[in-house]
Amino acid sequence: MKYGIVAFPSKRFQDLANTYRKRYDSHYSKITPHITLKEAFEADESDIQDISQTIASIAQKYAPLMIHASKVSSFYPTTNVIYFKIEPTNQLQNIHQDLQNALNIGKPKHVFTPHITIAQDLTATEHDDIFGQLRMIGVNEQESIDRIHLVYQLEDGSWTTYETYRLTGAE
Amino acid sequence: MKYGIVAFPSKRFQDLANTYRKRYDSHYSKITPHITLKEAFEADESDIQDISQTIASIAQKYAPLMIHASKVSSFYPTTNVIYFKIEPTNQLQNIHQDLQNALNIGKPKHVFTPHITIAQDLTATEHDDIFGQLRMIGVNEQESIDRIHLVYQLEDGSWTTYETYRLTGAE
Repeated sequence: MKYGIVAFPSKRFQDLANTYRKRYDSHYSKITPHITLKEAFEADESDIQDISQTIASIAQKYAPLMIHASKVSSFYPTTNVIYFKIEPTNQLQNIHQDLQNALNIGKPKHVFTPHITIAQDLTATEHDDIFGQLRMIGVNEQESIDRIHLVYQLEDGSWTTYETYRLTGAE
Repeated sequence: MKYGIVAFPSKRFQDLANTYRKRYDSHYSKITPHITLKEAFEADESDIQDISQTIASIAQKYAPLMIHASKVSSFYPTTNVIYFKIEPTNQLQNIHQDLQNALNIGKPKHVFTPHITIAQDLTATEHDDIFGQLRMIGVNEQESIDRIHLVYQLEDGSWTTYETYRLTGAE
């Protein structure tokens, strides 16, 4: 089964991201707007209790995530993905690294770049047009996120939450 | 903000429901297949901590939900909704009633009929055709669900999980 670990921002911020996603993001209907903390990984259903306990113990260490979406960026030319850039912080880097190390499943494909995807699967021309527009509009949102979610993927590509973990620590 | 309380069945059973939902359910992309335990209700974001604690205390009382999806039924003529009927049990009735009483928000519109929706927003003719077909195919799935979810709705109609509660009691 395919799992991932994400942080959902506030409803208000998700609604903002969705105004773009519904037009430009092919995964719009598969999951609501989120920051991926641990990329999708395969795990056996029988291991999920252990994995969940590991995540719970990491979540206990961390305080709510302070996030600042500061601008619209793109992963072009690696992929034609446009996103709200979340300013990197030690806190985000550390929780990502803790999850990565503890689970040790699925080597990260990319350097961790915290973000909220707002457009993907665009042609090169679409990408250039839309990125030009959205970069001008920009984004500037700050908030704290007090929980993270372990999610799993159904056969149709959609994601369901398996468990939530409140961030109740000090780091 | 609009909230609801649901139980998601296993991935396998969700995948089965989605084979129908992707063709026949207008809400297919808004939430993955689920049993609604408490219908959508409005609550202030500032009250959600209290509501969440109330749900947690109820969840502690109950053992994992034993469910048996026994046949394909329809709410016609009330609505053109086709669903997997979940056999009513005291356990399901009690957890629904506890949630309803404790939250005391939004009178239930209908008698509680545990189900998983697989088709809705059909014309009368579509309903009759599809119901005829699906009733013949039928369903017979038994499983236990060890957690419930508090979900909230975004402006586009999609639902995000706020919190999960494991059913760790004996009832």
